[in-house]
Amino acid sequence: MISLERGARETELAAKVDAFIRDKIIPFERDPRIEHHGPSDDLANELKALARKEGLLSPHVGEAYGGLGLNHREIATVFRSAGYSTLGPIALNIMAPDEGNMAMLEKVASAEQKEKFLRPLAAGKVRSAFLMTEPDGGAGSDPSMMKTTAVLDGNHWVINGVKTLITGADGAAFSIIMAKTGARATMFLADMKTPGIRIERVLDTIDRTMPGGHAVVSLTDVRVSAEDVLGQPDEGFKYAQVRLAPARLTHCMRWWGAAKRAHDIATAYACERQAFGKPLVDHEGVGFMLADNDIDLKQAELTIDWCAWVLDNAGHGAGTAESSVAKVAVSEALYRIADRCVQILGGRGVTDDTPVHQIFRDIRAFRIYDGPSEVHRWSIAKRIKREHKAKASH
Amino acid sequence: MISLERGARETELAAKVDAFIRDKIIPFERDPRIEHHGPSDDLANELKALARKEGLLSPHVGEAYGGLGLNHREIATVFRSAGYSTLGPIALNIMAPDEGNMAMLEKVASAEQKEKFLRPLAAGKVRSAFLMTEPDGGAGSDPSMMKTTAVLDGNHWVINGVKTLITGADGAAFSIIMAKTGARATMFLADMKTPGIRIERVLDTIDRTMPGGHAVVSLTDVRVSAEDVLGQPDEGFKYAQVRLAPARLTHCMRWWGAAKRAHDIATAYACERQAFGKPLVDHEGVGFMLADNDIDLKQAELTIDWCAWVLDNAGHGAGTAESSVAKVAVSEALYRIADRCVQILGGRGVTDDTPVHQIFRDIRAFRIYDGPSEVHRWSIAKRIKREHKAKASH
Amino acid sequence: MISLERGARETELAAKVDAFIRDKIIPFERDPRIEHHGPSDDLANELKALARKEGLLSPHVGEAYGGLGLNHREIATVFRSAGYSTLGPIALNIMAPDEGNMAMLEKVASAEQKEKFLRPLAAGKVRSAFLMTEPDGGAGSDPSMMKTTAVLDGNHWVINGVKTLITGADGAAFSIIMAKTGARATMFLADMKTPGIRIERVLDTIDRTMPGGHAVVSLTDVRVSAEDVLGQPDEGFKYAQVRLAPARLTHCMRWWGAAKRAHDIATAYACERQAFGKPLVDHEGVGFMLADNDIDLKQAELTIDWCAWVLDNAGHGAGTAESSVAKVAVSEALYRIADRCVQILGGRGVTDDTPVHQIFRDIRAFRIYDGPSEVHRWSIAKRIKREHKAKASH
Amino acid sequence: MISLERGARETELAAKVDAFIRDKIIPFERDPRIEHHGPSDDLANELKALARKEGLLSPHVGEAYGGLGLNHREIATVFRSAGYSTLGPIALNIMAPDEGNMAMLEKVASAEQKEKFLRPLAAGKVRSAFLMTEPDGGAGSDPSMMKTTAVLDGNHWVINGVKTLITGADGAAFSIIMAKTGARATMFLADMKTPGIRIERVLDTIDRTMPGGHAVVSLTDVRVSAEDVLGQPDEGFKYAQVRLAPARLTHCMRWWGAAKRAHDIATAYACERQAFGKPLVDHEGVGFMLADNDIDLKQAELTIDWCAWVLDNAGHGAGTAESSVAKVAVSEALYRIADRCVQILGGRGVTDDTPVHQIFRDIRAFRIYDGPSEVHRWSIAKRIKREHKAKASH
Repeated sequence: MISLERGARETELAAKVDAFIRDKIIPFERDPRIEHHGPSDDLANELKALARKEGLLSPHVGEAYGGLGLNHREIATVFRSAGYSTLGPIALNIMAPDEGNMAMLEKVASAEQKEKFLRPLAAGKVRSAFLMTEPDGGAGSDPSMMKTTAVLDGNHWVINGVKTLITGADGAAFSIIMAKTGARATMFLADMKTPGIRIERVLDTIDRTMPGGHAVVSLTDVRVSAEDVLGQPDEGFKYAQVRLAPARLTHCMRWWGAAKRAHDIATAYACERQAFGKPLVDHEGVGFMLADNDIDLKQAELTIDWCAWVLDNAGHGAGTAESSVAKVAVSEALYRIADRCVQILGGRGVTDDTPVHQIFRDIRAFRIYDGPSEVHRWSIAKRIKREHKAKASH
Repeated sequence: MISLERGARETELAAKVDAFIRDKIIPFERDPRIEHHGPSDDLANELKALARKEGLLSPHVGEAYGGLGLNHREIATVFRSAGYSTLGPIALNIMAPDEGNMAMLEKVASAEQKEKFLRPLAAGKVRSAFLMTEPDGGAGSDPSMMKTTAVLDGNHWVINGVKTLITGADGAAFSIIMAKTGARATMFLADMKTPGIRIERVLDTIDRTMPGGHAVVSLTDVRVSAEDVLGQPDEGFKYAQVRLAPARLTHCMRWWGAAKRAHDIATAYACERQAFGKPLVDHEGVGFMLADNDIDLKQAELTIDWCAWVLDNAGHGAGTAESSVAKVAVSEALYRIADRCVQILGGRGVTDDTPVHQIFRDIRAFRIYDGPSEVHRWSIAKRIKREHKAKASH
Repeated sequence: MISLERGARETELAAKVDAFIRDKIIPFERDPRIEHHGPSDDLANELKALARKEGLLSPHVGEAYGGLGLNHREIATVFRSAGYSTLGPIALNIMAPDEGNMAMLEKVASAEQKEKFLRPLAAGKVRSAFLMTEPDGGAGSDPSMMKTTAVLDGNHWVINGVKTLITGADGAAFSIIMAKTGARATMFLADMKTPGIRIERVLDTIDRTMPGGHAVVSLTDVRVSAEDVLGQPDEGFKYAQVRLAPARLTHCMRWWGAAKRAHDIATAYACERQAFGKPLVDHEGVGFMLADNDIDLKQAELTIDWCAWVLDNAGHGAGTAESSVAKVAVSEALYRIADRCVQILGGRGVTDDTPVHQIFRDIRAFRIYDGPSEVHRWSIAKRIKREHKAKASH
Repeated sequence: MISLERGARETELAAKVDAFIRDKIIPFERDPRIEHHGPSDDLANELKALARKEGLLSPHVGEAYGGLGLNHREIATVFRSAGYSTLGPIALNIMAPDEGNMAMLEKVASAEQKEKFLRPLAAGKVRSAFLMTEPDGGAGSDPSMMKTTAVLDGNHWVINGVKTLITGADGAAFSIIMAKTGARATMFLADMKTPGIRIERVLDTIDRTMPGGHAVVSLTDVRVSAEDVLGQPDEGFKYAQVRLAPARLTHCMRWWGAAKRAHDIATAYACERQAFGKPLVDHEGVGFMLADNDIDLKQAELTIDWCAWVLDNAGHGAGTAESSVAKVAVSEALYRIADRCVQILGGRGVTDDTPVHQIFRDIRAFRIYDGPSEVHRWSIAKRIKREHKAKASH
């Protein structure tokens, strides 16, 4: 049964983030230091400094690492607010893949690894990457196809393979590398300067807000010390699952904020611009699009909050099924919203004169990143079949 | 912030209703006493007797009238479960328009009126009607077009007009009549045997589960005593608003249960029926439809719970805007579900061999009853414009 | 390259059918002899007599059997016009399954069989059935699952099996029965009074315009003389293919007319009915639905004409792939049109006060009859793969 | 009635263009001279030289100007083939706005103007612009809002105003300027070096294939000789209509080819890439998307051919209504295709590793350029109302 009460801390925090984004971050959106894949490191550091000053940096990590130790529901509230500017998640240091990496390190890494990797990451001093997806389907939608291998050689693992669509690899200080170790998989922590790690090229992608873009990374005889195994050897797929559901959901949260921004811009335009003798909003062809946005935003918000509630309350490992539902429903809804906003803005909508164009492009990619909608529908159908069989066998 | 905890009472009640519907009501679904517009009065009384025995009759009304005094969130839980059988809402005495009439009488009627009208209605002894909608648009989507008038003549009001799509009029013991009294409107309570009230014809409609169907009712010099004014004269539109939001939402709840039933039938069929060498569910063309059903059901449930929460917690008169959002989103989602279920069942889906055919037809009408989706989108767009102007004027 | 010129004969014929439907047939649409599955035989005969008088009966068959010997493109023009009334196809004797049966008999039957079966059918004196689809998937979307068998016993075949969704079986004079003869299949002509043919029940289906409805028919030791094999033994699947593509397309044609009718009714209503101070059509929410109808009607018409052109011009057996494209595209488009028309009419749309309600129901079934859209998409995907492989292997 | 026969010349021409694009143009698609808004002038000239050599340059203009004098149906065939490469329309010199400008000059310009402006344009020696759309809605979807004015001063007109979204302005040799002359409008031919014509900025737009991009152009006391009026003064709106319908349709043609290309790339990928143990195409979730592409491509092709047929055969000024239908139907269909292709390609689909990403972006803009879909629906609804009134008044 749904309750919409928010705790005092959460309400206060939301208001604070809203004001911070509006007053401090949005003014930077036309800064010349914004490049093809988002802000330069210089600009990013300036934005993070502003968030640090407000006590808003890395709010999702524990207080031991400078955060606020928020639960998933509180994270939803804060991240949605941060997503309202395309620069917001960078300012708060909650952008993918860093945010998901921090969450996983906090859960799985050893004390030494936390000091070495998590602390500077949570402090916003470095960026990181997560080397999982491979070309030709390896570890993309179908993880069983992973081809990268790690072989033990004395006290080191030797890793070989190729990874693609690696967000933020260009400029990252370290990465988490997923590799097959026999029939199972292991995660490794590696400095990006380790010999054999090579950024082959940065892809030219439709989205533009992830610093470093998305790269193809080759791994050639990369030697990683056994103490840099993340967690236990052979537990890589299990940890990937741990990372998976919350990471999907934080994507939903951030882009929810972006879609809300697009909707607000389209609303303002529709209320002020005249056509055929009245404001656009009074044309039902436009007004109904805004109404559908309003409905989609509300349902996306409820779906995020529901899934966050499951992550907070259900037992360990729960939330994967719910996060599949949330990923499809929210990404498709936010995309419809962004598309309608482009359409409402007309010619202006396909230019960079407003952030709507960029939001549209970023969210197009969201329907594919972290599993295309089709893969999630496939896994939901599998679950429905499983549940039916369990029920029928009673 | 969403919490999905359910109180102990609610959880227990839901389980009880689920079992009651499954074990006691579904077996009647092929009873020969089911007629063109649902069960005969004879069958309906038998079903209500079963619910009465379980303490489940009219659960939404206060204990003073034999109910359980549920709040809107609890009502959502119980009504969704009841809707799982097309006979469920009749058994629990929570079908439109009786359920909405009970809710309004409980809030607005005088003590004497409650004894005379509410008590027998809540006890499941009689049915009622709500005479609002008029042909040619009067008081349909645009209430300002209402043409029925009431004129004071001594201690009586004299009512003249024509009403249409009056659910349950045929067989109702009494009705609530909405009529213009000058520039405003008043509600009247009237025995359906009052001279001048005439059921012109019962329409042949696509839906088939509302006892009495939907009638055209003429009102010719109908004399109603001044003491049978419901609430205060000239407050009719205000009371209509009071009735409106919750009545829309209970439609969503009941039909949610029906759509869930259709989904379960389609799931069972898809898991058991083979085509081209494997079960239908393993064909993505079918499995993806079930996945989309799963997503739509969850989002519809969340939307209903959210709106119920607003009705429970926001101040007097709140919830109209939220109920517009819920009405569009839920009716369109449930219709998509019903349509997919028909399609999954193939040839069988368009026959009466399963309840899916009837559920599809009933929910088609739901996209129009209580305001077509277009009218709700129109009012949502108006609200968006209003909110923008308020914000812009700061 | 498309040319839209119509021959003089075709133009004249279209005008004649349009006038006939408007002046002679539509006035019968509220005749009390219209029953649950369309007009009684009495009314049907009266309508056919009117068409016969105008020289419009069975226009698709050759002149030898009283028709006009139209090609597929001319058939498209005439059938679309006839479909404008729900009674039109019955009046012209071009309703399924009779129309498809006539076409197949004309192509495949022996001279004797033509005299015995085709002549009275084309003359509108009797009705026929086509016994192909089986319960549990047999010969439904997946023909390989057919379970009905025919075994030779002396000079007779003995047929056993169960067929379902057999349109027009109730009241048919004869039927074409499809049965497995070893690994292949054979078609048989049989008087419906042949011992062992039993109509188990007539299904209660969503559509209501096919005389006789759709029945479950059991075949128990049905003995058919060897001379009543249609065409050659073991060629049943081949003949089914011959029947298939044109039969799908004539469904598209007839229902196109029905959708056009619904659109015209909705247009008239939208132009005349006021809401919120202006005609409905001036509300973009309604006007855009009519615009989408206009687009869908035009594209459906072009798609039908294109497929008819292929049937007329490509070699023997051609048109199956094209008719799959046409079946999906047209049935889905006509359904969208019918659904929009219901929605535009509001409360009236879900009643029998206009033919729109019935048209909506009939066309819902069309998305399943002659292969659900999913089965056609499946076969189109198979063709795309085949074509890619052929191209890639060059 | 549709005929799909193609004349021998047309068939031959289509094969020639197909081969030219495949063998000569596609190899240039990764040429480093492709810039943010398409090929550099240097590369464009190289491509045009190739087309000139094949006799394929400016095939739509009359032989007097070096073309082939094709009719609209033949243009459809050639332009669709040319659109198969994003560089094809540039090579053939049939890109907007040059192609539409040539067509209009051929119809409206004086002999002297043709020599001066049309001849070098048709020869592929220069580019041109069409200065119509204005910021703040002027002459965008609602032409009555145009604010640019031309005032006669002796033998010259003096033009003042601002234009926006002016395709190809940057680098154009001359332009056609639309300006208000009193209550009506006039078109002017002007060298882009005329004092007072200033390109304020080139917009950063989502599409990337139109050389010169889309610019904001200011006009400050631009003096144009009276002999450079295009056609007659005050006839600007009439000429705009002449240009309008064919220009919309050639957009449909070119982008049809682009969508076909995307579909072919997605088909090849789906047939070759494995996931979960079988090729993607054998997953119905993917196969059905390809099937829907197939259907959409066919219907778009038919719709283009139908509208071209109307332009060829109906009287002067015809085709505006038909081109609105075609514009909505085709742009929306091609966009669905492009979107599905991105989705099928998964991560690769949102990168520049295939042309699909660019095609998706270009076609997104097409739903807005030459009138957003909503404006066309609006005008179709107006026509439906007009036709109903005309019919009802008989």
